[in-house]
Order: sequence, then structure tokens, then C-alpha cells
Amino acid sequence: MLEHGGRLRAAARHYGIAEADWLDLSTGIAPYGWDLPPIPAAAWARLPELEDGLEEAARRYYGCASLLPVAGSQAAIQALPRLRERSRVGVISPCYAEHAHAWRREGHELEALDAQTAERELERFDVLLVVNPNNPTGQRLDRQTLLEWRARLAEKGGWLLVDEAFMDCTPQESLAGDCPLPGLVVLRSFGKFFGLAGIRLGFVLAEPQLLQRLEEWLGPWAVSGPARALARALLQDQAGQARQREALLRDGQRLESLLRDCGLPTSGGTALFQRLLRDDAQALHEFLAARGILTRLFETPASLRFGLPPDEAGWERLGRGLIDYTKERP
Amino acid sequence: MLEHGGRLRAAARHYGIAEADWLDLSTGIAPYGWDLPPIPAAAWARLPELEDGLEEAARRYYGCASLLPVAGSQAAIQALPRLRERSRVGVISPCYAEHAHAWRREGHELEALDAQTAERELERFDVLLVVNPNNPTGQRLDRQTLLEWRARLAEKGGWLLVDEAFMDCTPQESLAGDCPLPGLVVLRSFGKFFGLAGIRLGFVLAEPQLLQRLEEWLGPWAVSGPARALARALLQDQAGQARQREALLRDGQRLESLLRDCGLPTSGGTALFQRLLRDDAQALHEFLAARGILTRLFETPASLRFGLPPDEAGWERLGRGLIDYTKERP
Repeated sequence: MLEHGGRLRAAARHYGIAEADWLDLSTGIAPYGWDLPPIPAAAWARLPELEDGLEEAARRYYGCASLLPVAGSQAAIQALPRLRERSRVGVISPCYAEHAHAWRREGHELEALDAQTAERELERFDVLLVVNPNNPTGQRLDRQTLLEWRARLAEKGGWLLVDEAFMDCTPQESLAGDCPLPGLVVLRSFGKFFGLAGIRLGFVLAEPQLLQRLEEWLGPWAVSGPARALARALLQDQAGQARQREALLRDGQRLESLLRDCGLPTSGGTALFQRLLRDDAQALHEFLAARGILTRLFETPASLRFGLPPDEAGWERLGRGLIDYTKERP
Repeated sequence: MLEHGGRLRAAARHYGIAEADWLDLSTGIAPYGWDLPPIPAAAWARLPELEDGLEEAARRYYGCASLLPVAGSQAAIQALPRLRERSRVGVISPCYAEHAHAWRREGHELEALDAQTAERELERFDVLLVVNPNNPTGQRLDRQTLLEWRARLAEKGGWLLVDEAFMDCTPQESLAGDCPLPGLVVLRSFGKFFGLAGIRLGFVLAEPQLLQRLEEWLGPWAVSGPARALARALLQDQAGQARQREALLRDGQRLESLLRDCGLPTSGGTALFQRLLRDDAQALHEFLAARGILTRLFETPASLRFGLPPDEAGWERLGRGLIDYTKERP
């Protein structure tokens, strides 16, 4: 298993600070969201029924007629490499490490590359994997470029696999509305934008034939009843989505400003996280952790990812921690 | 995909009876259970953390130190055939069809057999698959026999795979307390006994090395946060478990008596279901369905499976339906 952010319990033990006392900025999950709508008793008690309106609500939200709910986009990340013969897979890097890990484990040939190399040498690959916007760099690739790559890959039965886990605040840049197209596979995370990472829900947008194979592979009842009921309600709540988008975009901007004002300009990000590319990333990580502020440390290249504080107390606490750090290490 | 019980929506459409008006006896899930304990907000919002006490509560409940929570025993049924090279797999049949389906799909060599043949010819197989107590026949195999088979299979690196989905009312017959042993893999369903099939939770009991491979295969965060929180609370509630066991055993007995008193003696069952082996199974299924009572029909051999009614109104309605049937078809 790879190590992940969100391992608050381990940090609590390591730093001797009680779990409840941490400001956890180690994930890219919205730290606020919806009052939970009521969940019918049958959603808990019975096996999840299909045709409960979830797929229909998702088709409207994503603007795509052909999709499959899965138990978190992680479930699709694990399964997709198992649906192809041994392939040459290009991964625009750095990016969320579970992708390369999953493809490599299934015996595919992996190569890390940048967008320029992908454009130039796409013909060398059967599958190109893009996290857009990128996690953790925040890099964005425009729709037109991606659609051209998709066409070149599809010609020979290849896939353009686009992980849009952090796309919900900028739907105009999404490929969701372009699906289904031959060779195009788009992954969407539900929990990050909606602030419900615990329910394990994501969607795969692709051609029906591929979704059928994926569904058969994953088996029946992959998504829990309560997750289906909640997601259906939230995917229909357009006013709530607009409020959430506005709040996250505003707070993402605020996080970027705060870091810059503390002399720590970011190297990129999205509404849900900002990234600091710094040689002293580890020192800053440990300085903040000693004060109960958990960030996500990346070793290569040395960098830190900051998620959003949930409230004003969190913002103040982060601000103080950053200022103290810059004072001690001028 | 195989067809399953619990497809209430399809029946509602087919028979033109609104979903809410059905008495659904098509599953083997407890129709009553616990008042849901409170679920902490973090279980919804955050990625599920390990070390939240779920595994510890499960280890006590099952009496087994080595186990892995999975997103329903179905997740393990799908995954286990992917962890072995092509094997000769014996399936004590008939039984829950997803097992054979999953092994066959992965290219293993399947053979349906009965317990006598298994005893005599065990050496022909690498894996023996037993649903105990059996679904749908209710047949039970004793612990001693199974442990001997386990030893014979383990000698050559084989597995005895025992699906104990319906074992919670008769824990004294379970192999859970014998795990871990080389070659022994026990599956436990959480939702059936606890009446929470919607949350998608089950446990695999086996040697740590196999569980590690399975966990790696399934990937991180396989079980949702709310499922983990609920299950932890219920697995610790020994008084509630005793009440549930008593109620289910009583109602299982009542169902058997009701059917016998209506001239429809059962051919076997468990606390959670009873089975009728009858040439007129389809006619009885349709007769009851026309009255909004959904049972599970099996075609080969012709048989019906009845789950438990949830309340007195349900018992009366089932009794009336059965009596009407015997009157019309003397």
C-alpha cells in the first residue's frame, strides 16, 4: 500500500497530540459541505437497488449519459488496469501515486512524462494517464489538447484516462460533457467536492461497453445504500452546489494569499489545495506538525500540500503557525 | 451479472404493484435489527481511518485474531479467485451462485459435487468451496469434517473456502474460532444477521499473509466510514446480539411451522430463510407475487426460498396467501 494523506491517527501518535486537537490540512477534501439529507431506513437495511435515481441525477450533474457509480474513484483506479492486455502506459507526472502503482502492479509498462513529451511522442503509448487538474501540482491541461490526444489514442484502441477528482469547481474545463467518446475514460470523485469522502463514491464516465466490463469486474452492490441515497440528493441540489463552489473557490484563493503574504508563494493548486515547492518542505512540515497542523509532505520533489482550514479558528491557527515559521527561519 | 433476490423494483414493475405495498421475502436478510447508533460526522466527511476499533470489535465477535473487513462478502467472492493460479475448484452444490460464477470467470476449472464426493475425491481439487449453512438448501456440514478437509487441502497448498453468511445464529458451528489455519478461508457477511445489507460490509478470516494480498488487491478505503462506525458499535453490543439471535431463531422456527401447517413442508433452511422443494414452485411464486408477496424462485431444481416477514401484519399476510394457494390447488 502507498502512504496517503488523511492518516491523522498515525500523526497523533507520532507527535503525541490528541486527534481532536489537530488542524488536518493533509487531504484535498472539502472541509465543509451539506447538512446531511435524511436517509431512508431501507437504504441501510436492504441491498442497494438500482434505479433509485442516483444514475439519473449523476447524468445531469456531469452532463454525460454514460456513467457508472463505483465505490470511490480508487475502485476504478484499481480495476481499470485489469481490463487491458499489457500496455505501454504514459503518466503525466508527478501525480496522484495510486495510478502508476495500480498499472505497474498489473504488469503494464509505465513511463513518467511531461505534457510536452506526451504531445510529441503520444504514438509510443497505448494509454495516457492525466490527472486534471493535477494533484499535487495544480497543473491544468486544456480540453482541446486532451480531446486531440484522445483521438490519436483511440485510433489504435488506446485510452486517454483523465482523473478529474478536483474538477468540480471548474466544470467548464471538464471532459465529462464530451463523454462518451471512443477511448475516453474520465474519473470523477464524489467525496472531495461534496465533503463526504467517507461514503466511498465516484463515477466512471466512458463508453457503455467499457462500463459494462467494469461493472461485471466490480460485481453487484459495489456502492452502499446510504451513499446512493445521499449522493442522489446532493447531485440534484444545484443551489447547494453553487454555494459550495463559491465557498471553495474563495477559500482556495484565500489560502494562496495567506501563504504568499507569509513569504511562502505557492507553485500551483486548485480550490481544494495549494502546493509549496520548497527545499525546506520537510522542516516546515515538522514545524507545523509540532503545533498540531498536519500538511501533506512529498519528498520528490520536496514539497508540501495544504488543504483548506474548516473555519476561522483554523485560518488563524494556520496563519500563526506560518508566521512563527518565517520568524524562526528568516 | 447473475440475477438476485432483492430486486424488488423489477417485481413492482412486472406485477404492477407499488414498491411500498410488497411483502418482500426474497432475501435472507434479517428484516429487523438495531436502532442505529449515532455516526460521528467525521465518518461521513473524512476518508475512513484504520485503527478506529472496528477490527478489534470484529476479532472479539468472531473469536479470530486474523481478519480483514471488506465491502460485503461479495467483494471477497469476486477477489479470491484472482489470487490463485488456475485451480481445480470443487463447489458443494447447489449453493449461492456468485461463487461458481466468480471462479469460472477467472478461468478456473469448476466442478459441482456433493459432500460425499468431496470426502471421497478431495485430492482431485485445489480449492473446495462450501457455503455452510448452505444457501439455499440449509444443509450443514460439521466442523470436524470441514477441518479434516482443510488439512487435506492445505497439505498441497489448497484452500477450503467456507462461506458462513448465515452462521451468526449458530456460532457454535462456525469455523471462525479455528482461524487462522493454513488453507482455511472463512467469509462472514455482516449485513444479513445485523439487518444492514445496505452498508456493504463483510469479513474475511484467514492467515495474515493471504489477507495482506487480498487487502493490496482491494486497495485502500474499501469499507465506508459510516459502515465502519455502525459495525463497530453493533459488534460490541453482546446483549443486542443475543436478542437478535433469539428473535431470528424463533421466527425461523415459526416460518417452518407456518409452511408445514399449510401443507407445504420445507426441505431445509436456516433461521433467516426456509426452502420449499416443489414441482409447482413457479406457480406458487407467481400466485404469491400476484398478491404482493415476493419470494425467491430457483429453477433447477424447482424450489422457492422464503425470508422472514418483518412484523405480525406480514406473518398474517403470508399465512393468508399460503392458505389461499392450497385451497385453489388442492
